[in-house]
Amino acid sequence: MLISRDFLSMQSIQTLGAQVYFYQEAYAQLSNHLKGSNYSSVFVLVDENTEKDCLPILLEKVEQLQKATILRIPSGEENKNIATCLQLWESLSEADADRKSLMINLGGGVLTDLGGFVASTFKRGIDFINIPTTLLAMVDASVGGKTGVDLGPLKNQVGVIREAVMVLVIPEFLKTLEERQLVSGFAEMLKHGLIQDFSYWQQLSKTQQFGTLEEHIHRSVSLKNQVVMKDPTEKNERKILNFGHTLGHAIESYFLNESEQETLLHGEAIAIGMVLEAYISSKLTGLPEDQLSDIKTTFKRFFKSVVFTASQIESILNLLRYDKKNSYGRVNFVLLKSIGEPVIDVQVPEDLLKSSFAYYME
Amino acid sequence: MLISRDFLSMQSIQTLGAQVYFYQEAYAQLSNHLKGSNYSSVFVLVDENTEKDCLPILLEKVEQLQKATILRIPSGEENKNIATCLQLWESLSEADADRKSLMINLGGGVLTDLGGFVASTFKRGIDFINIPTTLLAMVDASVGGKTGVDLGPLKNQVGVIREAVMVLVIPEFLKTLEERQLVSGFAEMLKHGLIQDFSYWQQLSKTQQFGTLEEHIHRSVSLKNQVVMKDPTEKNERKILNFGHTLGHAIESYFLNESEQETLLHGEAIAIGMVLEAYISSKLTGLPEDQLSDIKTTFKRFFKSVVFTASQIESILNLLRYDKKNSYGRVNFVLLKSIGEPVIDVQVPEDLLKSSFAYYME
Repeated sequence: MLISRDFLSMQSIQTLGAQVYFYQEAYAQLSNHLKGSNYSSVFVLVDENTEKDCLPILLEKVEQLQKATILRIPSGEENKNIATCLQLWESLSEADADRKSLMINLGGGVLTDLGGFVASTFKRGIDFINIPTTLLAMVDASVGGKTGVDLGPLKNQVGVIREAVMVLVIPEFLKTLEERQLVSGFAEMLKHGLIQDFSYWQQLSKTQQFGTLEEHIHRSVSLKNQVVMKDPTEKNERKILNFGHTLGHAIESYFLNESEQETLLHGEAIAIGMVLEAYISSKLTGLPEDQLSDIKTTFKRFFKSVVFTASQIESILNLLRYDKKNSYGRVNFVLLKSIGEPVIDVQVPEDLLKSSFAYYME
Repeated sequence: MLISRDFLSMQSIQTLGAQVYFYQEAYAQLSNHLKGSNYSSVFVLVDENTEKDCLPILLEKVEQLQKATILRIPSGEENKNIATCLQLWESLSEADADRKSLMINLGGGVLTDLGGFVASTFKRGIDFINIPTTLLAMVDASVGGKTGVDLGPLKNQVGVIREAVMVLVIPEFLKTLEERQLVSGFAEMLKHGLIQDFSYWQQLSKTQQFGTLEEHIHRSVSLKNQVVMKDPTEKNERKILNFGHTLGHAIESYFLNESEQETLLHGEAIAIGMVLEAYISSKLTGLPEDQLSDIKTTFKRFFKSVVFTASQIESILNLLRYDKKNSYGRVNFVLLKSIGEPVIDVQVPEDLLKSSFAYYME
């Protein structure tokens, strides 16, 4: 039997509190865990997409889940709120969930963030397992233990940091994703290169076919995990993961609130954020011009350009001050000295923020 | 200058994550902490009672709090819910609270449980300080890090375990409490004797005047802390703190839901629970008859007797299965071999539950 190179390289990754398993091993480990753990009841949280596309596969591969109770929430960031949590807490109570119950979150980042929060707070915390089903959730939400929900327009305003007991990365689930969703996750992978690994950035920026991205998932999870392990509570080092996110989050929130606008996916918003923050880096922290230009060209090749009006830019900058990472009313940025060399806690003058949008739209 | 024996014995107590300070030292430590910690903003959570009776004293003693923002919630267990949390999360957002903000919870157990949960989940966790203002909150909620809110009739169904950065026990605040509230807290102190310390039980059971209780607060906090330190996540040892609470919680929930009934305070409900569970202990785990009789006599002396009808008992037993400490649909009790010697995870036959009520009412 031939075992592919990819499969052999997919060693499981030990995070702070969880083990991340890949491919076929993921199913086997879940089965073993269920056999060994003596849970009083098991719940699987799905949305309408993962119920249709992923749940049947999971139930076929992991027999013990046939008896699990299925909990359903509607997909979409607009449902990532306390009202949805309340419904789930009540559903768990009604189904007699107790402290020895297990919750399996099967979905994208919205679902795993929300499901993780509900599990972390139900009866002061029950075990949960994340099975991310989008590329973004696989490379980004799978490690680090961040859970949370939005409060009106403010993203992840309520949450806790608590690790899943196990994370399963099963690239098979990506087959049902639209290309736009894949590309959104690709933005976070590119970020892992920009903040940590120049050669990875070079490799990814040459990507021709998104279908081949899955072979890089393991490397991205591993890169992110290295950062999180060094600084679990985001005092210092971990902040580098926010590269592109300071402006990116504000852009994402803005488009989410404006019902007339087409919503930007998370990766699409932070792709813009990374170009803007690369420009600011070239002015404040010495990012070389050729690298700046490489960054802009690469993102423009993979992501559709967005045109911002002056009043839109104004609104986005107003949202910045609500970003949860800002202390003392100041906005702190992660910038780059060069690709692979980030700097944290940089403050940026107002005029540079505006001119970064001009550079992006040039 | 004469320094009283009591004051000298009030050494601060180191819990898992917090330091508990007593009397005048509490104010001084809070002042120092505020000076040394560089918080971006400070919030004080009060209810209508503590705003009137305790806040003015606190503001006078700790000057730096003059600039703090006051957050108000209505008192009462019926407001210990997610709707109240949502209002507070929104108030914090509107007041531009960030990750470097501090929340000070000034109130009884309802307020510190809820305030601790809101702080632990706002932006994935900000610092909070608890200043319990009832005897119950001082001896019970001050250590252990349990936070949470109710879900309909189900107590503390949603919450996390997270310690305050500091707990201040200031018995001065007890002066405004009604005697009924004092006696309610006394029930938890008696419990600390029953599960850990026979001599403490004997001492407390001789109490003539509730005004003298404050000298025992330090011992109760210290006894509870010893238990929590051995088992922070309530896997084993810590369960002993639930003595009297299995039936006590069900009784408390029942009276809370029945709007025609007068509500029982927490301590009043668990006082009954302790008599019931002492009776069960005498049948299942060998609690000597004379100790059982001592326990019943003592509680009957301090607490008003309640008469239960057969249908009320039925309803209370139905509520038992929803107790969050029950795993696999079974109800686990903490019982006593003797005063000071608890046993955990005991299952109790249905008929003994019923006859315990009969014994209580004899």
